Amino acid sequence: MNEREIAQIVTATIEKVMEEKRSRMTLSLAKEIINKVILKAEEMGVKAVVAVTDAGANPICVECMDDSYIASYDIAVNKAFTVVSLKMATKELKALASPGGSLYGIQFTNGGKIVIFGGGVPLKVGDKVIGGVGVSGGTEEEDTYLADYALSLFEEGMLWKQ
Amino acid sequence: MNEREIAQIVTATIEKVMEEKRSRMTLSLAKEIINKVILKAEEMGVKAVVAVTDAGANPICVECMDDSYIASYDIAVNKAFTVVSLKMATKELKALASPGGSLYGIQFTNGGKIVIFGGGVPLKVGDKVIGGVGVSGGTEEEDTYLADYALSLFEEGMLWKQ
Amino acid sequence: MNEREIAQIVTATIEKVMEEKRSRMTLSLAKEIINKVILKAEEMGVKAVVAVTDAGANPICVECMDDSYIASYDIAVNKAFTVVSLKMATKELKALASPGGSLYGIQFTNGGKIVIFGGGVPLKVGDKVIGGVGVSGGTEEEDTYLADYALSLFEEGMLWKQ
Amino acid sequence: MNEREIAQIVTATIEKVMEEKRSRMTLSLAKEIINKVILKAEEMGVKAVVAVTDAGANPICVECMDDSYIASYDIAVNKAFTVVSLKMATKELKALASPGGSLYGIQFTNGGKIVIFGGGVPLKVGDKVIGGVGVSGGTEEEDTYLADYALSLFEEGMLWKQ
Repeated sequence: MNEREIAQIVTATIEKVMEEKRSRMTLSLAKEIINKVILKAEEMGVKAVVAVTDAGANPICVECMDDSYIASYDIAVNKAFTVVSLKMATKELKALASPGGSLYGIQFTNGGKIVIFGGGVPLKVGDKVIGGVGVSGGTEEEDTYLADYALSLFEEGMLWKQ
Repeated sequence: MNEREIAQIVTATIEKVMEEKRSRMTLSLAKEIINKVILKAEEMGVKAVVAVTDAGANPICVECMDDSYIASYDIAVNKAFTVVSLKMATKELKALASPGGSLYGIQFTNGGKIVIFGGGVPLKVGDKVIGGVGVSGGTEEEDTYLADYALSLFEEGMLWKQ
Repeated sequence: MNEREIAQIVTATIEKVMEEKRSRMTLSLAKEIINKVILKAEEMGVKAVVAVTDAGANPICVECMDDSYIASYDIAVNKAFTVVSLKMATKELKALASPGGSLYGIQFTNGGKIVIFGGGVPLKVGDKVIGGVGVSGGTEEEDTYLADYALSLFEEGMLWKQ
Repeated sequence: MNEREIAQIVTATIEKVMEEKRSRMTLSLAKEIINKVILKAEEMGVKAVVAVTDAGANPICVECMDDSYIASYDIAVNKAFTVVSLKMATKELKALASPGGSLYGIQFTNGGKIVIFGGGVPLKVGDKVIGGVGVSGGTEEEDTYLADYALSLFEEGMLWKQ
């Protein structure tokens, strides 16, 4: 091996370790996502609950803005569960789970934890779902917008590439 | 400051304290609401269950008229939960939560506690939800009428302005 | 049949109808019981939740005194369920359901609705359980005292013999 | 009224408004509490989940430290529910709810939401419970220590007196 080859291997290894490191939901990342979504919700005049789950679909962080709906806590946590457990945004589930849809009934299969309206997105690194975001508190459009906003920040790497 | 100004400050302060006092659900207010609704239900020939929750969506008082439906107990309590936890009358949820509506599926997200047909109203002082009323036992129209009746009494201040 | 015999039959029939009438929990009786218990609780400085169930173990009336424990709602309702569904005061269940007792485990068999500490009493007319009272909010001694107080009023007929 | 008296009235009024303001759980206060507890947990080498509820026993903020127990999420949230709904630290419930204690069985009465070991404390302003803190992830001693730490910071006013 020459020096260049060694350098390549070292670089690739570091890259992989970093990738590995990045591809895991942490409390710090979850809080960063939630902070950004809440700032945006404030701008929009929405009182949101925002939840983030990890790759096991377990909640990592949940924050309820002052005067948000009491019901939004369960809805946000369940959206964040849904997107990891089905690897799909909740808005995509909507059509599938409506009467006539191919998955109609899936809203009854998991102890009331599957949410089938917008406001939840899975966070992926490559093909791997590393966590999910659930937003509840505005209209479906607003919740969907806020969840997509979280996704776009995540994908642009503004949140976790440091 | 002259005497008039001082009087104004004192009056405003007392007003604020009274407002504060009024803006809280009490057992006494809950019973007054339920009594009035039950008298009206009797007039209409409806055998109703009437429930009142506080600002935390926790039940404060529930009364089941003789021979009312056994199922109406849960329905009334859950309507009173729904309207506080979503700050919305249950009849407004109906369209949103029906197949094709933007929130279709919300009836499954909170452990079976979200009711999506008429008969529940939030009680507000200003912008603040201080409690909710849930009525079950008649047709949806009757339950809705009775819940709206409770709301109108509350808003006219017949119940709590003393 | 002579006049005396006719009179006896009529009297017996009226008695039976009255007995029948009395031996049924009504909202009016439930409220009377709860009112009396709450007055006594106020005297004692206890902030109680009081629930009354009917012969089907279904709640008929529940009242939460201001600033009573949020948890007391479920506990009072469940005590009132327990006493009808097992035809036994909850304090009697205590020994039976403790580790080593013959019914140890019964607290897990009914979806969390069996309460095994004092504060619940069945209301009987003859051998027939016509309803139950559950009190929660004080110490076990206070809750037991208040439930026994309800029972004694009921048995003395102060509440329902009119 | 002279100037000094007017000043006193105004001061008292402002004080009251501030008291009012302080006596309500907010997301900002909940996050401040959780941050402080997590910093302390890090010092101690404990991987904790910390939850804060409001006066209605509804969760406001939950944070799970990296690699904390999955089960700790429910435990922390339920501790924070327990302390508000029973106005009591969970360690105080321990003796009462143990076999032989006067409230043995209370752990089964509220749908699995009552936790009877240390790590939960109610937060009070005067007599009023304005929220609760639940900590799970360490030994019972560690969770209790961390919850008590949150309470002492709250009581010293380091968190909310600004």
